Amino acid sequence: MQSDLVAALDIGGTKIAGALVDGAGRMLLRVRRPTPAREDAETVMAAVGEVLAELAASPLWPEVAAVGIGSAGPVDASAGTVSPVNVPGWRGYPLVERVAAATGGLPVALVGDGVAMTAAEHWKGAARGYDNALCMVVSTGVGGGLVLGGHLHTGPTGNAGHIGHISVDLDGDPCPCGGRGCVERIASGPHIARRALENGWRPGPDGDTTAAAVAASARAGDPVATASFDRAARALAAGIAATATLVEIDIAVIGGGVAGAGEVLFAPLRRSLREYATLSFVRRLTVAPALTGGDAGLLGAAAAATEARHGRQAVSYTG
Amino acid sequence: MQSDLVAALDIGGTKIAGALVDGAGRMLLRVRRPTPAREDAETVMAAVGEVLAELAASPLWPEVAAVGIGSAGPVDASAGTVSPVNVPGWRGYPLVERVAAATGGLPVALVGDGVAMTAAEHWKGAARGYDNALCMVVSTGVGGGLVLGGHLHTGPTGNAGHIGHISVDLDGDPCPCGGRGCVERIASGPHIARRALENGWRPGPDGDTTAAAVAASARAGDPVATASFDRAARALAAGIAATATLVEIDIAVIGGGVAGAGEVLFAPLRRSLREYATLSFVRRLTVAPALTGGDAGLLGAAAAATEARHGRQAVSYTG
Repeated sequence: MQSDLVAALDIGGTKIAGALVDGAGRMLLRVRRPTPAREDAETVMAAVGEVLAELAASPLWPEVAAVGIGSAGPVDASAGTVSPVNVPGWRGYPLVERVAAATGGLPVALVGDGVAMTAAEHWKGAARGYDNALCMVVSTGVGGGLVLGGHLHTGPTGNAGHIGHISVDLDGDPCPCGGRGCVERIASGPHIARRALENGWRPGPDGDTTAAAVAASARAGDPVATASFDRAARALAAGIAATATLVEIDIAVIGGGVAGAGEVLFAPLRRSLREYATLSFVRRLTVAPALTGGDAGLLGAAAAATEARHGRQAVSYTG
Repeated sequence: MQSDLVAALDIGGTKIAGALVDGAGRMLLRVRRPTPAREDAETVMAAVGEVLAELAASPLWPEVAAVGIGSAGPVDASAGTVSPVNVPGWRGYPLVERVAAATGGLPVALVGDGVAMTAAEHWKGAARGYDNALCMVVSTGVGGGLVLGGHLHTGPTGNAGHIGHISVDLDGDPCPCGGRGCVERIASGPHIARRALENGWRPGPDGDTTAAAVAASARAGDPVATASFDRAARALAAGIAATATLVEIDIAVIGGGVAGAGEVLFAPLRRSLREYATLSFVRRLTVAPALTGGDAGLLGAAAAATEARHGRQAVSYTG
C-alpha cells in the first residue's frame, strides 16, 4: 500500500537520517548524512536539504503525501521550531517552514525524538496493541513519550513524555536542566558509570568505563556494579510508577543503550516497580524492552506524519 | 436550558450529596444524607437510594437525561465499581449497576472524586478556558485530575490524576499506599501538622493542632510552622512539575482545606515551582486556587455525565 507514502526525517546530534516509508511501515529508501552539529544554522539545514534531495530523486517521490520529522529536543511543535541541545546553531530554528519550502509545500509534522520513538513502538514495536503506554529511551540521556487512549499524546508543544526530567528525589543532586533528583540524573548511562566508579568499581584491562562495561561486571556478580544498576532501576521505577499513577498506562517500553543491559536492569526494575506502583489501577503495569531499535526515529516520524494527516494529534503541521 | 438536566451524586466518607444540575451548571435541587460509613454495603446503598428518591420526587425528574457520580476512590470506572477507603462495606461494589436500577435505567457515569473536582474546575472554576490543566485537592489526603487537549482525562479506570501517590522522594518515608515519599505523605494537612509538631511547634491555648492552626502560626511569623508549609509546597511543586513535564499542562489549580492557607502555601509553591519546572515548555506554568469549593463534587459529577453523554471520555457508562 503506497497511497500512504510519507517521507521521514530523524534529526539528531550525530546524524540526519531520511527515508520513504509506506503505510505498512516499510522503508523503501534510506538516506543518511552526518550532522554538521558545530556549524551555523544554514550549514545544518543544507545537510537536511541534501537528504531531502536524495529522497526526492526517487521515482516514488510524487506519491509522497507528507513529511514527518522526529528531532532531538527541545522542539516547539506549536511554533514549528527546534532547538536541539547538541546543535547549538539551531535555536528556535523554523525547521517546519524550511522543510515545507524545500519540498514544494508538502504538509510537515514535527515531534520530539522521545515522541517519535513512542510512535514507532506503538506502531511496530512492544507497545503495539496497547492503548495506554509510556515508551522511553535510556542511554546518554533519558527521554520518552506517551500513548493515551490509543493515540500519541504529544502535548501542545510536542514535548510530552519528558520522563528524564521529572524529579524522583526532591532533595537530590542538581541536574543540568536546573532541577534536582531528575530520573536522568540517576538512571542515564553516564550516571550509572559515574556512580559505579565513585563507589570503587574499576574497569577491566580495556579501560572501558561505559555503562555497558558496568553491566558486564554486574552480570559477573560485581556488587558495586550491581548496586549502581539497582539504583538506576529504582529511579526508573519511581518515574514509571508516577506516570502510571498520573495518566494510567498498561505498559512501559524501554529502549536505548542502557536497556541493552537486559536483566541487569529489568530484574531490579520489575522489583522496584512493585514498591512504587502500589495503587490498584497501576499494579498490573508491565515493562518490556523496545523492539524498533535504530529504526525508531524514522518509523516514528512517519507515524507522526500519518497521525497528523488524519487530524488525530496536535503536532506542528503545515499543509 | 434544562434539556441538559442531569442528576449528580457526590459520595464521600462523611456525606452523600445529590443534586439536579442544569446545562448551565445551576443546582436546581440539593439533597444530602450522612454516609453510614461503618455499616454494611446495603445500608450504605440505602442512603444513596434515599438521596435518589428525594431527587426523583422533584417535578423536574422526568427531564433528567443521565446520572453522574463522583465517588471517593479507588473507583473502577471500567467495571462500574467503587471501593472507597473510608467505606469498608463497599469493596468492588457495583454502584453503577445499582444506581442505573434505582433510576429506571438512566445512563450512569462514574468518576473518582479527584476527576470530579477537575471536571468542576474546568467547567466553572479556575481551569475554565484551559485545554491542559491539573486540578488538585490538598486536605486530609491529596487527590487530583487532569484535563488534556480540552477534555477530562480519566484513564481507563477513572483514576488518572492521582498525584497524591506519586513519589517525589524515592528514599522517603513509607506511605500507607505501600509506596515511599508520596506527595501526600509530605503535603497533606495531617502531615503538615505532624512535621510542625515534631520540630517543636506548639498549638495555641485552644489546643488546635490542625494544618489550619499551623498556617495561622506561619502567618504570624513562626519559623517552624513556616518551614512545614515550605516543605509541603516543595513536594507539591515537584509533583506538579513532574505532571507538567510528562503531559504538558498550563495551569495547576489547588483546592481543599490546605489551599485555604493562602499565600502561606502559594508563595513557597510558586518559588519551588521555578526550581522544578525547568524545561522550556513547562516554565510558563501557573498555579491558582480552586473556585468551586464545596460544590465541586456535584458540579463535577454533572460535568462527567454530560461529557459521557457526548461520548468524549471513557468513564463507566451504562445506558
